[in-house]
Amino acid sequence: MRTQVAIIGSGPSGLILGQLLSKAGIDNVIIDRVDRDYILGRIRAGVLEVGMVSMMDQAGAGERMHKEGLVHDGFDLSFSGRRHRIDLKNLTGTSVMVYGQTELTRDLMDHREADGGVTIYNAANVKPHDFDGDKPYVTYEKDGVTHRIDCDFIAGCDGFHGVCRASVQDKGIQNYEKVYPFGWLGILADVPPVHHELIYANHARGFALCSQRSLTRSRYYVQVPLTDKAEEWSDDAFWDEIRRRLPADVAEAMVTGPSIEKSIAPLRSFVAEPLRFGRLFLVGDAGHIVPPTGAKGLNLAASDVHYLFEGLQGFYGEKSMAGIDAYSARALARIWKAERFSWSMTTLMHRFPAEGEFGQKVQEAELDYLSSSNAAQTAMAENYVGLPY
Amino acid sequence: MRTQVAIIGSGPSGLILGQLLSKAGIDNVIIDRVDRDYILGRIRAGVLEVGMVSMMDQAGAGERMHKEGLVHDGFDLSFSGRRHRIDLKNLTGTSVMVYGQTELTRDLMDHREADGGVTIYNAANVKPHDFDGDKPYVTYEKDGVTHRIDCDFIAGCDGFHGVCRASVQDKGIQNYEKVYPFGWLGILADVPPVHHELIYANHARGFALCSQRSLTRSRYYVQVPLTDKAEEWSDDAFWDEIRRRLPADVAEAMVTGPSIEKSIAPLRSFVAEPLRFGRLFLVGDAGHIVPPTGAKGLNLAASDVHYLFEGLQGFYGEKSMAGIDAYSARALARIWKAERFSWSMTTLMHRFPAEGEFGQKVQEAELDYLSSSNAAQTAMAENYVGLPY
Repeated sequence: MRTQVAIIGSGPSGLILGQLLSKAGIDNVIIDRVDRDYILGRIRAGVLEVGMVSMMDQAGAGERMHKEGLVHDGFDLSFSGRRHRIDLKNLTGTSVMVYGQTELTRDLMDHREADGGVTIYNAANVKPHDFDGDKPYVTYEKDGVTHRIDCDFIAGCDGFHGVCRASVQDKGIQNYEKVYPFGWLGILADVPPVHHELIYANHARGFALCSQRSLTRSRYYVQVPLTDKAEEWSDDAFWDEIRRRLPADVAEAMVTGPSIEKSIAPLRSFVAEPLRFGRLFLVGDAGHIVPPTGAKGLNLAASDVHYLFEGLQGFYGEKSMAGIDAYSARALARIWKAERFSWSMTTLMHRFPAEGEFGQKVQEAELDYLSSSNAAQTAMAENYVGLPY
Repeated sequence: MRTQVAIIGSGPSGLILGQLLSKAGIDNVIIDRVDRDYILGRIRAGVLEVGMVSMMDQAGAGERMHKEGLVHDGFDLSFSGRRHRIDLKNLTGTSVMVYGQTELTRDLMDHREADGGVTIYNAANVKPHDFDGDKPYVTYEKDGVTHRIDCDFIAGCDGFHGVCRASVQDKGIQNYEKVYPFGWLGILADVPPVHHELIYANHARGFALCSQRSLTRSRYYVQVPLTDKAEEWSDDAFWDEIRRRLPADVAEAMVTGPSIEKSIAPLRSFVAEPLRFGRLFLVGDAGHIVPPTGAKGLNLAASDVHYLFEGLQGFYGEKSMAGIDAYSARALARIWKAERFSWSMTTLMHRFPAEGEFGQKVQEAELDYLSSSNAAQTAMAENYVGLPY
C-alpha cells in the first residue's frame, strides 16, 4: 500500500491530523494496534481550548460538540475555606468547551468512516522504517501477514508508550521529566455536577477537583499517595474525602452516587526534544506529557497537529520544506509554556509533603494574592484558555 | 527610666518607627546591643518600594535619599542569552528607589540625634519583661550596672537573631521556614555599574545579579554552593564567573576592579506567627526573613512599621486597641504575599540541582512566557514595586 502520510495511532491527534489532511486532499492512512472500541473505552479529560474547538470545526467534526458540549466562562479556585472565580471570559474574552475526549474521538472516527478514510485497527507490531531518508515506510502484522505502507511522512500519534518515540531513542533524542510524588484518584458517576463550572481545590489534606462530562455525569478527583490502590477506596470513602477538601457550601450541595469508574493516575511532566527525526514526527503524548491540572494534554496534541498540518500543507502545496523544518521548534515553544503552566498549577494546588508547612502557607498566600490581582488572574486565565498558536 | 514605647534594635525598622512616633509626640527609647558604627558597617540591599520612600519622607528623613538615590523605572531579566526589560513604570505607574540601606540608616540616625531622640548603644543583655501584662519593661546592662526602662509597649526590631523572638519561643509561636540549597557570593566594588538598572540573570551555571549602590559603586552577586568560602574566591574568579552568566554584550561592557567587600550569604525564607505577644511586637527581620531576590526584606520591615505605627497612634490618640489587635494579622497578610513573591522569584531565577534539566527548561519557558505576556509582567512588576499597604 502507498499513502502520502502514514499516521500511527488513532487517538485524537491522529484523527484530527487525518481529517485535516483528508480535507486538504492529502492522502493518509491511520494504523492502530488496538480497535475502535478499545480506544473509545479510554476515559480522558475534556476541557477544550478555543484553538482545539476551531480545529474540530476545521476538521468538519464539530457539530455534536457544539450541540452537546458545555461552554464554561470561568472556573473556581477553592482555598482557605473560600472560593474565588477566575472569570475566563471577562479576563481574556475567551471561554473553554467541556466535552469529553471520548465523545470527541467518536465524532472524529465517525466522520473519518463517513468520508471513506482508511484506518487499520488491530495492527500488531507496528514499526516505522527508513524515516532518515526520503522513502520511509511502516510495517505491521495482521492475520499472520506482514504488511507494508510506503509513504512520504510518518506521524507518530501513538502516545507516551508508543513505538514511534521508542524508535528514535538512539538518535540523540533528549528526554526531560518530572514525576510528582502523588496521583489522582478519579471517580466517574452519573450524578449532577455540584457546580456548573469546575472547582480546583487547594486543601491541607490535598488537592481536589470537581469536574463534569455533562449535566448528568460528574468527574471528581482527589490527590492520593501513589501507594494507594483504587480498589481499596470505597465510594463512600471517596465522597467523604472529597467533601472534607471543599468549602462547606460545596460539600453540602454534593450529590453522591455509585461510581461507574474509579482509578488512580500518576502525574508526570515529560518532554522529548526534538519532535522531528527526518520524516518521522512525534505528535501529542508521543512527545510530551503534562499532569492533568489545567487540562492541557489534549489541547497540546491539537497545537502539535496545527503546526504539523501547516508544514505538510506547505510541502504538498508549495513544495516547501520550511514548515516541516520548523515543526519541532514551533511545537516545542508552545509545549514548554503549557508544561510550565501545568507544572505551576499542579505546584500551586497540591500538597507536597516535602515542602512542609511553609509550602502550604506559600500556596495560600499565592491564592490570596491571585484573588486580589487582576494581572495575576489574567495571566492564569490566558494560560488556561490557551496561549495563541 | 520610663518611656511610652521601648524599641529594641536600632536598624532601619526601629529607627523609622522611632522617628514616626517622635513626630507624633509619642515618647520612645531605642536600645541596641552594639554601637552606631557597627550598625553602619553592615552592608545590606537598597531597593526601596514607594511605600518605604513615603515613610522616609513622613519620618522627615528623606531629603538626602531624594538627592542621591537613583530612581529606577525598570529592571532586566536575563535568560537564554537575551535580556527582557520589566518596565515597572509603564506596567504599574510606579518606580523604585535605589538607595543603600546603610545610607538610609545613617540618615535616620542623624535625624534622631538632631531631634534629641534617645538611643542607648552598647546595651548588654537586653531583655523584654512582663509584656503579657500591661506594665512591661526592658532591662539591659551597661558599664556594669543593670538598667530598667518601664514602658507601655515593646517593639522588637532586633533582627532574626534578636532577643525578642527568642523571648516568646514558649508562648505558642509558630515558625515557618525554608532554607535554600545555595548562597549568594556578593562583591562590592568602586566601579561604574554595567547597566543603569538591575539585571537579574538566570543561567544554567546559576543565578547572577548586577546591582548598584550609586553611579560609581557596584554590587554584584553570583549563586554559589553553600560549601564555598568567600576567601577562596579571588576577585578575578568572581569577575570571570559573573561574566559567564550574562549575555555577551553585558559581559563585555562590565568594568571590573578590586573588591571592597566580599562575602557569602545563605538564602532563607522564614515567618513567625503571630507577631504580637501582649504588649510585645515583632517587627521586620525579628519576625520574618526573605531571600534577597526581589529586595523585599527592608520593605517588609517598613510595612510592619506602618501597621504598628497606626496601631500605636490609635492607642495614644483615640484610646483604641483596634489597631494594636489587628497588627499581627494585617502585617502577616502582606508579609506572606512578599514571602510568596521572594520565594517565586528565587525559584524562577536560581539553579536548583535537585530539579534537574526539567527544572531549568521550565524556568526558561516561564521567562519566555513572561517576556510575551503583559499580564504576567504586570503581576511581577506590581509585586516588585510593592503591593499596597
